[in-house]
Amino acid sequence: MARVFNFSAGPATIAEDVLKKAQEELLDWNGTGMSVMEMSHRGKDYVSIAEKAEADLRELMNIPAGYKVLFLQGGATGQFAAIPMNILRGKKAADYVCTGSWSKKAIAEGKKYCDVNVVSQPEKFNTIPEVSEWNLSADAAYLHICSNETIEGVEFKELPECGEVPLVADMSSNILSRPIDVSKFGIIYAGTQKNIGPAGMAIAIVREDLIGDALPTTPSVLDYQKQADNDSMLNTPPTYTWYMAGLAFQNLKKIGGLEAIAEINDRKAAKLYDCIDASDFYANPVDPKYRSVMNVPFTLADDSLDAAFLDGAKKEGLVTLKGHRSIGGMRASIYNAMPEEGIDALIAFMKEFERTNG
Amino acid sequence: MARVFNFSAGPATIAEDVLKKAQEELLDWNGTGMSVMEMSHRGKDYVSIAEKAEADLRELMNIPAGYKVLFLQGGATGQFAAIPMNILRGKKAADYVCTGSWSKKAIAEGKKYCDVNVVSQPEKFNTIPEVSEWNLSADAAYLHICSNETIEGVEFKELPECGEVPLVADMSSNILSRPIDVSKFGIIYAGTQKNIGPAGMAIAIVREDLIGDALPTTPSVLDYQKQADNDSMLNTPPTYTWYMAGLAFQNLKKIGGLEAIAEINDRKAAKLYDCIDASDFYANPVDPKYRSVMNVPFTLADDSLDAAFLDGAKKEGLVTLKGHRSIGGMRASIYNAMPEEGIDALIAFMKEFERTNG
Repeated sequence: MARVFNFSAGPATIAEDVLKKAQEELLDWNGTGMSVMEMSHRGKDYVSIAEKAEADLRELMNIPAGYKVLFLQGGATGQFAAIPMNILRGKKAADYVCTGSWSKKAIAEGKKYCDVNVVSQPEKFNTIPEVSEWNLSADAAYLHICSNETIEGVEFKELPECGEVPLVADMSSNILSRPIDVSKFGIIYAGTQKNIGPAGMAIAIVREDLIGDALPTTPSVLDYQKQADNDSMLNTPPTYTWYMAGLAFQNLKKIGGLEAIAEINDRKAAKLYDCIDASDFYANPVDPKYRSVMNVPFTLADDSLDAAFLDGAKKEGLVTLKGHRSIGGMRASIYNAMPEEGIDALIAFMKEFERTNG
Repeated sequence: MARVFNFSAGPATIAEDVLKKAQEELLDWNGTGMSVMEMSHRGKDYVSIAEKAEADLRELMNIPAGYKVLFLQGGATGQFAAIPMNILRGKKAADYVCTGSWSKKAIAEGKKYCDVNVVSQPEKFNTIPEVSEWNLSADAAYLHICSNETIEGVEFKELPECGEVPLVADMSSNILSRPIDVSKFGIIYAGTQKNIGPAGMAIAIVREDLIGDALPTTPSVLDYQKQADNDSMLNTPPTYTWYMAGLAFQNLKKIGGLEAIAEINDRKAAKLYDCIDASDFYANPVDPKYRSVMNVPFTLADDSLDAAFLDGAKKEGLVTLKGHRSIGGMRASIYNAMPEEGIDALIAFMKEFERTNG
């Protein structure tokens, strides 16, 4: 059938140009007579693919010297453990801000390795408390935030200042959605399956002074020093996912980089929130100051219509709109790769559904 | 260009039928209008793909009830840590047989978590000492072997008897190459990038009584209990690699399963070893009793011809034949997906090269 508009929160839609390129060279990359999947990761062809992906990411995010970019297995959940295992540096505790479901998971995993201070948590996961109200510790090994809560649709709009304590951010669902100042962070990490490409990899951008003091029980595959020393090839990396990420980076450069995509993302999100806000039939529960540009949860005033909404949307080629099971309702994940036409089609359907069911 | 015969040790060649199927459905799986890469791992389409892959693997390997099949990130190197972290069960030590480079890596990682008894190690990595000579411990948490050493080309031909101590085998490079009796093992594990499909996943077949006693510092992504409780979807799994593995399993069933592929593999290996043994120009250093059916290292009597051999082979579409840097010479990895015509072409080239250079 025709390509659908897929609003999945992750794994998520991938730009059609990227998929077509992957399809075209699936059996023969660049005249080598083999698929990227079949290439030795130590061979010059694959190394060129890996290096270009890193160089393009560095260019897109303007990653300064003094930061390693690691391509690792285990997803962001692997990093929930890797971070304390690697960067406690003899300290006993770390600060975490709890703004939603993914913060909670990072905190639960962090507690295996250190004392976790939850420095801030709103009563409901629909806002982010002011930084001035956070209960920061001076001796924390790091301060962890989830920059965008995929499930609740809550996003940080500015960076907390945390002095000497390294700021660590799980950016799985909003990395590359807009320019950020990498130099403000100790670590930025992200699973690839939301705003980059296929599942099966995490990218960790790590300030070099934080590398080199892993706990002795850290599995080597999660040891930043060992991976950095081996250009993320301590063992065989997820070569095809890395390649697909590289295609996404090239595509993003073609669009004009992070400034250009941020403008598109802001326009897409504004349209959808405007549609929701203009109606009493739909509602979004998030404090407008912290609404996510990537994940837009919304509810129908009458939830007995949810099934009909999802069915009707599917008939229009608008799929994976069901909200997370912990929240209910709907959720439209509108990452970089979701074309603006997808938003327009969703809005048209929402208006029509309201007209016939409101 | 035309597809080459790719003798890479891993990532390795993938059956052309599998790649063509993947290419065909890259933008639209089964009329869903989306790529497998874009599917939510929790949706019914992807769950059907994942479940079919597991069912096919269980059928192919005749995996008994009482074993979990886990699809994990981190490769076999991740499992080098996961195994002691999960199955020490309060014991302090484990037995390891050291038969080559991959055994050594497993041992080095194991030492982080327990006392490692190296129960057997040959003087040179070109044979496997008789089991009767192994120095087994009665109180070991497990006995670890590498069933096929990819680099040295040494393969176990029969299973050691180790009484009550669970036998754990790294089968990364010979899983699915022939029928085995899974019930003799505590754990069988394998990185997928050699005899299964793309890199980025490990499959662990774990006897259920070994699950549930992980060290408290085990990262959740490597915790067998947590992954088993969540059908390997504690976090987003490497969905596309899992799908590609499933295509390889389907292809293997079409060939006739493990008995059929074993016959083909034996024939392929015998041809190549015969060619090497029939000549004074080529040599394989491994004790004929333990020669690998999957990885065939060989040397030229005059190693100043190595570069010319590799160049000439490449011109014939025979690539990635260079031996591992630690060994030198040549290595032909001839996994399930290497067609018999690839072996025939290699042998024809070897004979011609000898004729013109011998």
